[in-house]
Amino acid sequence: MDKNQIHGTAIFTLLSMAVMIFSSATLVQCAVINLWPKPRIVSWPLPLATLLSPKFKITSPNHRYLSTAVYRYLHLILTEHHHPLVIPTVNLTNGSVVQSLIVTIHDLSAPLVHGVNESYHLKIPSTGVEASLTAETAWGAMRGLETFSQLVWGNPSHVASGMEVWDWPIFEHRGVMLDTSRNFYNVEDILRMIGAMSGNKLNVFHWHITDSHSFPLLLPSEPGLADKGSYGPDMQYSPKDVTRIVQFGLEHGVRVLPEIDMPGHTGSWAKAYPEIVACANMFWWPAGYKWEDRLASEPGAGQLNPLNPKTYQVLKNVIRDVTMMFPEPFYHAGGDEVAPGCWKADPEIQEFLSKDGSLSEILEMFLNSTFPYIVSMNRTVVYWEDVLLDQTVRVNRSLLPPESTILQTWNDGPNNTKAIVSSGYRAIVSSADYYYLDCGHGSFIGNNSKYDQGNAGNTGTGDSWCGPFKTWQTIYNYDITYGLTEEEAKLVLGGEVALWSEQADPTVLDSRIWPRASAMAEAMWSGNRDEKGMKRYAEATDRLNEWRGRMVSRGIRAEPIQPLWCARNPGMCDTVNSS
Amino acid sequence: MDKNQIHGTAIFTLLSMAVMIFSSATLVQCAVINLWPKPRIVSWPLPLATLLSPKFKITSPNHRYLSTAVYRYLHLILTEHHHPLVIPTVNLTNGSVVQSLIVTIHDLSAPLVHGVNESYHLKIPSTGVEASLTAETAWGAMRGLETFSQLVWGNPSHVASGMEVWDWPIFEHRGVMLDTSRNFYNVEDILRMIGAMSGNKLNVFHWHITDSHSFPLLLPSEPGLADKGSYGPDMQYSPKDVTRIVQFGLEHGVRVLPEIDMPGHTGSWAKAYPEIVACANMFWWPAGYKWEDRLASEPGAGQLNPLNPKTYQVLKNVIRDVTMMFPEPFYHAGGDEVAPGCWKADPEIQEFLSKDGSLSEILEMFLNSTFPYIVSMNRTVVYWEDVLLDQTVRVNRSLLPPESTILQTWNDGPNNTKAIVSSGYRAIVSSADYYYLDCGHGSFIGNNSKYDQGNAGNTGTGDSWCGPFKTWQTIYNYDITYGLTEEEAKLVLGGEVALWSEQADPTVLDSRIWPRASAMAEAMWSGNRDEKGMKRYAEATDRLNEWRGRMVSRGIRAEPIQPLWCARNPGMCDTVNSS
Repeated sequence: MDKNQIHGTAIFTLLSMAVMIFSSATLVQCAVINLWPKPRIVSWPLPLATLLSPKFKITSPNHRYLSTAVYRYLHLILTEHHHPLVIPTVNLTNGSVVQSLIVTIHDLSAPLVHGVNESYHLKIPSTGVEASLTAETAWGAMRGLETFSQLVWGNPSHVASGMEVWDWPIFEHRGVMLDTSRNFYNVEDILRMIGAMSGNKLNVFHWHITDSHSFPLLLPSEPGLADKGSYGPDMQYSPKDVTRIVQFGLEHGVRVLPEIDMPGHTGSWAKAYPEIVACANMFWWPAGYKWEDRLASEPGAGQLNPLNPKTYQVLKNVIRDVTMMFPEPFYHAGGDEVAPGCWKADPEIQEFLSKDGSLSEILEMFLNSTFPYIVSMNRTVVYWEDVLLDQTVRVNRSLLPPESTILQTWNDGPNNTKAIVSSGYRAIVSSADYYYLDCGHGSFIGNNSKYDQGNAGNTGTGDSWCGPFKTWQTIYNYDITYGLTEEEAKLVLGGEVALWSEQADPTVLDSRIWPRASAMAEAMWSGNRDEKGMKRYAEATDRLNEWRGRMVSRGIRAEPIQPLWCARNPGMCDTVNSS
Repeated sequence: MDKNQIHGTAIFTLLSMAVMIFSSATLVQCAVINLWPKPRIVSWPLPLATLLSPKFKITSPNHRYLSTAVYRYLHLILTEHHHPLVIPTVNLTNGSVVQSLIVTIHDLSAPLVHGVNESYHLKIPSTGVEASLTAETAWGAMRGLETFSQLVWGNPSHVASGMEVWDWPIFEHRGVMLDTSRNFYNVEDILRMIGAMSGNKLNVFHWHITDSHSFPLLLPSEPGLADKGSYGPDMQYSPKDVTRIVQFGLEHGVRVLPEIDMPGHTGSWAKAYPEIVACANMFWWPAGYKWEDRLASEPGAGQLNPLNPKTYQVLKNVIRDVTMMFPEPFYHAGGDEVAPGCWKADPEIQEFLSKDGSLSEILEMFLNSTFPYIVSMNRTVVYWEDVLLDQTVRVNRSLLPPESTILQTWNDGPNNTKAIVSSGYRAIVSSADYYYLDCGHGSFIGNNSKYDQGNAGNTGTGDSWCGPFKTWQTIYNYDITYGLTEEEAKLVLGGEVALWSEQADPTVLDSRIWPRASAMAEAMWSGNRDEKGMKRYAEATDRLNEWRGRMVSRGIRAEPIQPLWCARNPGMCDTVNSS
């Protein structure tokens, strides 16, 4: 997947090779400059640093979004004065002071879309006053600015010098999915997340905007959906809010990919249009029903009724509004977890089924009436894998041409990724076994009689369907192209960690996402292995400690991964006897 | 354990019986007033409410700490204007306005110690302008003030009326343990936690101040321990800080119980006194060592050397200073996880062992030289259960007279509680299987080779020794006197949830503790069963949603337990088919 590979001579001096641990366990000095994600190629033959001028400047070509980013990074670089957990031991070059960073872009017109070139080359001389950042596009330059900012620390500011970085991502799609339906997040929360994503060189915010619980998106053509279906007037995203979020994304090199989940997960639509939603607001798992006959995967229930023409009148308005509000060329149309029990509970659908119709035919009708319309809006449609891989309700592949369709996988780990790409579809990997950030944290379902039984409730995976909790190590070490041929691997666009919000809201947003999304960010950007092909989680631990610390000082409440003692005593918290 | 039982006629009108759900799923109205923890007895025959005067006043006898609490609650009650998730449907009494709350105390001199009477009787008339709060002690009055504050909502402020509450705790020891050694917390974080504890009627902050990772407590007689052993001058607790925390605790009815863990978990002491610490700063699990021979339960290593007289010179200073700084009559002396491998690594101890000495004898020497000194300071000594129950290193019971000794249990659930109380000792329950708040959230140990193996790392309990994650339901439903005789049960003083800070610090403090500590708080205060003896977790879910929401609005970043949709649609997120 190294489509952006940079050619040229490169000295492979891995940062970790510059570690110098001075004997005594109480005196540890390191010449590591911690970068996250780790760049592809770094040349830093000597552990040198140079003072950064308090009048440091960045010059760059004029570009609507890059100029904002340059301004932001200039402010950050001049004011951050980052205090590392372990102060790097470097040799300060005498007399020399870095005065400026000169940014050069080859193609200023490249838009922020999937596959855009994000490569950059950064050079900080050990003598001389000018550092240089060269990139193919403005978006690559933003990645390089982030790297530069992470090379600066201390007060007065030091910057690593005598260094060159050649860098570009392995995977082009590196995302975070956030569900804003089950619980609501303010615009400020979302912006803070996008900002942190940019720091991690992540480039796609997959916004799972709507679901059965609430419909927070205020659509100009269908205002009733949010008016009635949101949690309240103070828990909606107005068109102005969306514009602000999209703009903020562009300023940070982060695409905003909207998802309007359908036909399942649409109970909230029934507040405005009860007639187009099957099983709306019915109890999700009626007494006596088998598990597989429940009306929804979880409370609450509700699925659009594909047999009602009114459904499509509403949908065309929704789709048109969403494509107008979100310039992003990918459009996520959901398609996950169509519950047979819900459609079977609808009289109209019952009649259709009684005449030898099938649930899959109903889903095909739905896709036939929506997919072409989305494509006509110049969009590539992303669906959850279920539309093709569900055991019970799925459509014929012929309905979904691979050139316009991408499938996002979440079940069965590497197996479903294989199933998707071996069928010729592009895949986005968000395996629940590895990339779901909500797992292992309990269940939101009430009244579970297991708690009646003695002191039960302390077994298994913490009462979470997708437990255990996905540690940063689990996320970091997942190989998303595991078991694929080289050709198949090319169809894997990248990965997304996902935060479903049954038990998340702004109080825990930062700590649920960070630094675990950072773990995926590095795996997607430069991989999880060293130059010998060995997993590099051990080396990554100290770097992640530092990066997490820097994120916290930048206002992101990322959770700690170790006692501070471990960060200050590298290696002392390792396991060497584990088998 | 109902030592404070109030006699008198009581009308058992459970709040949940007042729920009125009006048919349509979109229109849910409830006359529930949500209190947490649920009081023992509430009489509220009609769902009445009365306006609260904007000039509402609280009159109370003069008391150093209660007066501060009254002032705080008055401000809260007048300004909170709580907006419930589900607006209670009540009948507003016409014309009547509550103007004041009259607080009466029977014994103003009772100090805040274990076993102090915390009962109160609250009466809010449906007509008339005066509410009354009667309590045996100032501390009981603080509990009643909290209850009153939770009965007020809206703008203008409403208060439930025509209500009487008789209330007192089941267990006298209801605590939260926080480890401030592995990662540091600021004084403000600790105060915020104590404030939230008070809101939950919790009454003991067990402060695990020191451990192997850092020694943050600045002791006047031994300043070197913190000067050298803390994480830095900005990560210490000065005597002034401690005074502020203790004072704040008194103003909130929360005892501050200090723990100086010893002889294990003392690696940080070696920065100041390397000669008194065995295996200090040695790698915790040297290559080739068996698991049971490792030098510490986890990184880092270090245990006080009981054979060195200097150890006791330092310890007497430490103990004397701590008893002077903390007025609390309980003193926690640690005693957990003495690692045989550490002492065996010390030459002096090796020599002792080679002369037929045993590790248990060494621990007995240590306790013989410290326990009587602590007792001489008029303290009851709390130890972790290990001192008596450890398989390898434990002391003879005769050394620890039950009248001066309390054991805190953390291993093996109900079995160790039974072992402690059946031996005649009082027990504090903080079973790791139920009450450890850090569990199930991954491991901090680095370089675990399991991650080399394919896509491993996603099995079991999330790489956590005490996984899975303890859900609020697991905590709520644990019966800490399970399997005990009535006489044995009397020796169970109560429970503590514990946050060990390997992977916690201020960024996640609130969400790791709340609302899960609330679950224990109610179980300890009024139990986890309804009047029929059935577990009441189902009824508790909606109340906990509301209480969590109120905590968030009071500035505590408690994590959500459900989608807002569930709270607004009571019962719709239940499981009825679970077996």
